[in-house]
Amino acid sequence: MFVLGIDPGLTTTGYGVIGRFPALKPVVAGIIRTRVENPVAVRLKELYESLMILIEEHAPEVMAIEQVFTNLNRQTAIAVGRAAGVAILAAAQSGMTVFEYTPTAVKSAVTGDGAAGKQAVQKMVARRLNLKTAPQPADAADALAVAICHIQSLQVPAGAVR
Amino acid sequence: MFVLGIDPGLTTTGYGVIGRFPALKPVVAGIIRTRVENPVAVRLKELYESLMILIEEHAPEVMAIEQVFTNLNRQTAIAVGRAAGVAILAAAQSGMTVFEYTPTAVKSAVTGDGAAGKQAVQKMVARRLNLKTAPQPADAADALAVAICHIQSLQVPAGAVR
Repeated sequence: MFVLGIDPGLTTTGYGVIGRFPALKPVVAGIIRTRVENPVAVRLKELYESLMILIEEHAPEVMAIEQVFTNLNRQTAIAVGRAAGVAILAAAQSGMTVFEYTPTAVKSAVTGDGAAGKQAVQKMVARRLNLKTAPQPADAADALAVAICHIQSLQVPAGAVR
Repeated sequence: MFVLGIDPGLTTTGYGVIGRFPALKPVVAGIIRTRVENPVAVRLKELYESLMILIEEHAPEVMAIEQVFTNLNRQTAIAVGRAAGVAILAAAQSGMTVFEYTPTAVKSAVTGDGAAGKQAVQKMVARRLNLKTAPQPADAADALAVAICHIQSLQVPAGAVR
């Protein structure tokens, strides 16, 4: 199973694909940037097209997307909401299932602490994926963290009765 | 020139197409509803597909969309932002230009009063379009108001030197 993690934004959207074989393996991670000088409509189209290429190439079954909304000013919140809408649409059109996680849920799943700092999250992302250092830039690592959060939420609890 | 006005929302998106010959003429107005029981991804896809059918049928050159963001709680703001993102994407993919207007700008353009109530706006929409009553439901009238706002913003001021 391949999971595409998304940390949405109009200017920068982080993405990361993780496979589970059953150990977690990072397949690809990076960022999609749109040009600030372009109209919003053009930027959303650029984002959509880049995501569609990514989805076609790696064929993930699931999108795990972060609800990045806390502590944002209104203009940023509008922009993030729009970028997230376009990302979710791209997933739906590709037949993927979409799961959403709050920043607290992601931090908690990856580090065990819902209030963990950015660096703690990145360090644990590297450890969980057997990487020497956290993937760069930070938005790519954040996207991988959401994907890890989703995969972890699927695990059967240790003491569960089958 | 045909202008597609949009009052975006995840559950209900109002739309209205206005032509200018040069008198304003309403071509079509209504609402797109998505089913609350469906996942957000499915609903955004439904909204996108309905908008694409509308755009194909009426071939408007411009989308005028309302920034409905004031006084919304966070969950509603997220939903509206996502619906707006999908609407703007549909316009961009159809080669349309997108213009955004705040609720205050729309009210001011249609009634002359940026703080006008919903009923005052609807009454003026009917008058400006030579309709006996305001189009129903209210979201459709709101979408027509955004389209009127855009067309009005293109007018050369009465005293302008050519």
